Amino acid sequence: MKLILVRHGESAANFENYWTGWLDVDLTTKGIEQAKNAGKKLKAAGVVIDVAYESVLKRSIKTAQMILKEAEAHFVPENKTWRLNERHYGALVGKNKDIIKREFGAEQVKKWRRGFDEVPPLVKENHFDRRYDNLDPGLIPLGESLRMTSQRVIPLWQDKIAPALLDEKTVLVCGHGNSLRVLVQYLEAIPTDQVDQIDIPNATPVVYTFDSQLKISKKEIL
Amino acid sequence: MKLILVRHGESAANFENYWTGWLDVDLTTKGIEQAKNAGKKLKAAGVVIDVAYESVLKRSIKTAQMILKEAEAHFVPENKTWRLNERHYGALVGKNKDIIKREFGAEQVKKWRRGFDEVPPLVKENHFDRRYDNLDPGLIPLGESLRMTSQRVIPLWQDKIAPALLDEKTVLVCGHGNSLRVLVQYLEAIPTDQVDQIDIPNATPVVYTFDSQLKISKKEIL
Repeated sequence: MKLILVRHGESAANFENYWTGWLDVDLTTKGIEQAKNAGKKLKAAGVVIDVAYESVLKRSIKTAQMILKEAEAHFVPENKTWRLNERHYGALVGKNKDIIKREFGAEQVKKWRRGFDEVPPLVKENHFDRRYDNLDPGLIPLGESLRMTSQRVIPLWQDKIAPALLDEKTVLVCGHGNSLRVLVQYLEAIPTDQVDQIDIPNATPVVYTFDSQLKISKKEIL
Repeated sequence: MKLILVRHGESAANFENYWTGWLDVDLTTKGIEQAKNAGKKLKAAGVVIDVAYESVLKRSIKTAQMILKEAEAHFVPENKTWRLNERHYGALVGKNKDIIKREFGAEQVKKWRRGFDEVPPLVKENHFDRRYDNLDPGLIPLGESLRMTSQRVIPLWQDKIAPALLDEKTVLVCGHGNSLRVLVQYLEAIPTDQVDQIDIPNATPVVYTFDSQLKISKKEIL
């Protein structure tokens, strides 16, 4: 029973250094190549994917689909869920990180980026398309702390990923920097004041092997 | 409530004129362009897809994913099911249609291709990969008549597509020449001796609109 965590490949926003959150930015050409490469690595390592989870953002979906294609596993069931979305960065979304640093100071920006309970300035209102129409409006944030992100990611582990692992499935999870960070924190029981040390590079598969009690028996970075 | 039927774009086998059935052949470059174009047509027609059904064969999956991408609906749930697979052509799979015609005569080949109850020569054994591992082995055919194909396609309509339509969803179904032919036959109540007249070109969206009793109120070919 294996869990493969993969952060999406490089996006236009990674490249241009602004906050994206739930903005649906695309992969760069480099990001597409990184995703293909992640699939090749998984195939070479003999990892056989049974089911895939993705956010509803195209940089995650495309990364997963590239991986499945390269791993010759295009027929694997894909599940797209808002629970894996990037942390909602509130009013910081679309803002350049350097400009915000000059405006609010490096210390404040560091807190927003790396604190566990720090909530970014909220948006007054979201302007999303229909993709969240089936969601309880109360679930859609105006901005999230990392704790808030964790609180909506972990139910996916509890309800879907853990049962699939216990069913001896190998699960691919394609997420984002922060939705994967909180999952890693949960799995490895990392204290909240050390979460800022968890860094997940783009398109680099992290493969966890679990025992029958869902304790981690091995962690490999491909 | 709309149902969009799309046969996959041109595959290598369409091009090279051999039977594929459950062989997992890829789209040609032309096939990929056709699929993109189908997505553009749907977007231009203002069709808003809520959920997608695909076979477990890559020519269908890729066609659906190209359509979703072009229609800016990559976040739409995708469901991959063997029920939408192409008709299993038994021992004819991989054989060139012209060569088989010379061997068995045009009349016999016409029967195999267009008869409703004609079963092709069976394979002794299938050599599939793990994608059917979760399927009752008794469900995996050694060769199918069109009636047998219909009998495993229609439950998808009954269990998934019809309920989604009644839930006012717009459903995209990306299938194959014969899995879509039997669905059209069922929807339009076409007698079995006229099924050979149903022809579904590659990557051409057929949009059905239904009333609340699931009677067809409109049929458009885009």
